[in-house]
Amino acid sequence: MAPDPTDDRRERTERVQAALRERGADALVLSKGVDQYYLSGFLTPPQKRHLFLIVPASGEPVFFAPEPYRRQLEESSWVETLYTWDDTEDPVARLRETVAAIGLEDADRILVNQGMWGMYVLDFRTVLGAEFDVATDLLMTLRQRKSERERDRIRDAASIADTVSEEVRSLDAVGMTENELAAEIEYRVRKHGATDKGTTQVQSGPNSAHPPHAYSDRTIEPGDPVIVDLGSRVDGYLSDQSRTVVYEGDPPAGFVDAFETVREAQEAAIDAIEPGVTGAAVDDVARSIIDDAGYEGQFLHVTGHGVGLGIHEPPYLMSGSYMDGGNEIPIEPGMVMTVEPAIYDDEWGIRIEDLVLVTDDGTERLTDSYHGWEPL
Amino acid sequence: MAPDPTDDRRERTERVQAALRERGADALVLSKGVDQYYLSGFLTPPQKRHLFLIVPASGEPVFFAPEPYRRQLEESSWVETLYTWDDTEDPVARLRETVAAIGLEDADRILVNQGMWGMYVLDFRTVLGAEFDVATDLLMTLRQRKSERERDRIRDAASIADTVSEEVRSLDAVGMTENELAAEIEYRVRKHGATDKGTTQVQSGPNSAHPPHAYSDRTIEPGDPVIVDLGSRVDGYLSDQSRTVVYEGDPPAGFVDAFETVREAQEAAIDAIEPGVTGAAVDDVARSIIDDAGYEGQFLHVTGHGVGLGIHEPPYLMSGSYMDGGNEIPIEPGMVMTVEPAIYDDEWGIRIEDLVLVTDDGTERLTDSYHGWEPL
Repeated sequence: MAPDPTDDRRERTERVQAALRERGADALVLSKGVDQYYLSGFLTPPQKRHLFLIVPASGEPVFFAPEPYRRQLEESSWVETLYTWDDTEDPVARLRETVAAIGLEDADRILVNQGMWGMYVLDFRTVLGAEFDVATDLLMTLRQRKSERERDRIRDAASIADTVSEEVRSLDAVGMTENELAAEIEYRVRKHGATDKGTTQVQSGPNSAHPPHAYSDRTIEPGDPVIVDLGSRVDGYLSDQSRTVVYEGDPPAGFVDAFETVREAQEAAIDAIEPGVTGAAVDDVARSIIDDAGYEGQFLHVTGHGVGLGIHEPPYLMSGSYMDGGNEIPIEPGMVMTVEPAIYDDEWGIRIEDLVLVTDDGTERLTDSYHGWEPL
Repeated sequence: MAPDPTDDRRERTERVQAALRERGADALVLSKGVDQYYLSGFLTPPQKRHLFLIVPASGEPVFFAPEPYRRQLEESSWVETLYTWDDTEDPVARLRETVAAIGLEDADRILVNQGMWGMYVLDFRTVLGAEFDVATDLLMTLRQRKSERERDRIRDAASIADTVSEEVRSLDAVGMTENELAAEIEYRVRKHGATDKGTTQVQSGPNSAHPPHAYSDRTIEPGDPVIVDLGSRVDGYLSDQSRTVVYEGDPPAGFVDAFETVREAQEAAIDAIEPGVTGAAVDDVARSIIDDAGYEGQFLHVTGHGVGLGIHEPPYLMSGSYMDGGNEIPIEPGMVMTVEPAIYDDEWGIRIEDLVLVTDDGTERLTDSYHGWEPL
């Protein structure tokens, strides 16, 4: 599977440049991470290094990078101009020279990616007297509509996750720790060809009542609901899905009824997704079913979130509005999102999460492995 | 293995508060990640969420967090005061109220952690007219000297890495892809009890010539030097080590001589480490041996870096001075660092990396598995 071709990335960059001119911004600066990858083809984890892609409102973008990254930049990116610094130099002094060399020294307004470290924003402030702002919506407007090539990669990532989800259902998980089950999941995801794991959560027994829990050294016991939340990454693109399994023994009182309610809420929410509908409306469909069944206040998070190069990105299926305003945007074909209603009780929880792609008239289900709570 | 007790974290927080008063800063704000963990006991990966630990120069620290994190915060942290917001609220409006509630609305100077996202720094700017600066040195001054409890955790993480390093040496790696070998490593690290993997690199054949390479779908061939760089994480604390192995066949011309030079440089650098010596002096010991043996310009990175809650932190064993100035600080007992000289040729590379703890009169080797290039 080849990465996106140069043409796609160049076109995205030109659209960013048009948006910069429209907003009166002189340049967009991106630190290491997926936004750099989206425009340039160069992907490496965000770590402490002054490595920036600088996209001026007009003209050619440039990289500012440590010299040892030269080969990787040249091989992976179409961006031709590289300003490098080496370990014995002060990168801020080199940055000042670079900003002058590309004619940005008198810039008035610079946009940066939302995840750029504060230390880098402050370093840019020392070399540029401009106003700084975050470019989240600008990049997300592009990123949330997936191209055909991006969809294929997410399909692959989703298919690997679905396979592993069914595989680990048949494991003898009682007696394993959450940590061990998480390790099994991540190993299998990689063995099936993913370039990396996604986000793993193994929430067993009382830990399943607590949505942010990752995994721990708690041993899985008979009768435990276990929320298995997993994904994979293929060529930068992620998948995400969850199942709730009772590996052995009887589920707790009230569990089976609640499980049916979550299933019903999920099906209804997926059915409600089509172009033109807002994320808030989809959230309302799922939440109403859960509330009406008597679980009001027990669905502790949003109904879903966009997935792509980021694990949480617009659009958000939620009634509030804080996250990039993504939930107010009408859903469009090419968007990819999770649908994950849930019910959390005091000592257990249930979450069922699938990934869907919005089509011209509804959705394509990207994950669809067995949904029940019984092991296979 | 229990996390650090409240007393340790409270004492660190009081030292931070004394440093804030000394610098005329009103508060330190930390976003999700290891700095929060260091002071509070609450650890969760940095993701998009307004979740801050606010440490005023005097008085009690507080958390500002999404409501679903309440349980985790209460269980893991000694910090008692929580200001929460839920998904239907604008977190910036709640942040404004919180800042007023804790008496910071007229603050003049706020310090933030270096990895805080630019978007959060800009959000704080909208609720506080203060000057903002990065608190890297303040936290690193504390973090780089490890307590006895921290040393124990790094010892455990190093011991797991050492075990896995020897295990994967005996694998039949020829015919595997770098990606598959990386998956094996990470699985074994977790099976041996680590709470997470460290940073994995599998650099085979020509990829070993390129220090930033992670791993790829390249298949390992006979005669390939393979740099296997791995670590593990125990209770937040990391280890890091590398070996260079030729799994099968004859190494390339010049490899064996270069290997002996790297070994010699590493032994000499470790012998040079003791309290009072600077990182620059240790770097010079390793680099001189490599240069004098005729490999000038082929040791492409620094000799070493501190390891703890971060994979790259002070002190740096380097002659330059850009990274937090860490290399100018005399080495002290309790510091933990890698020693990783290397030689990179056009088509292959050699790196040997071990982790050491500085003692009162030298070093304790935390990793010490078999160093040769032959498989076991």
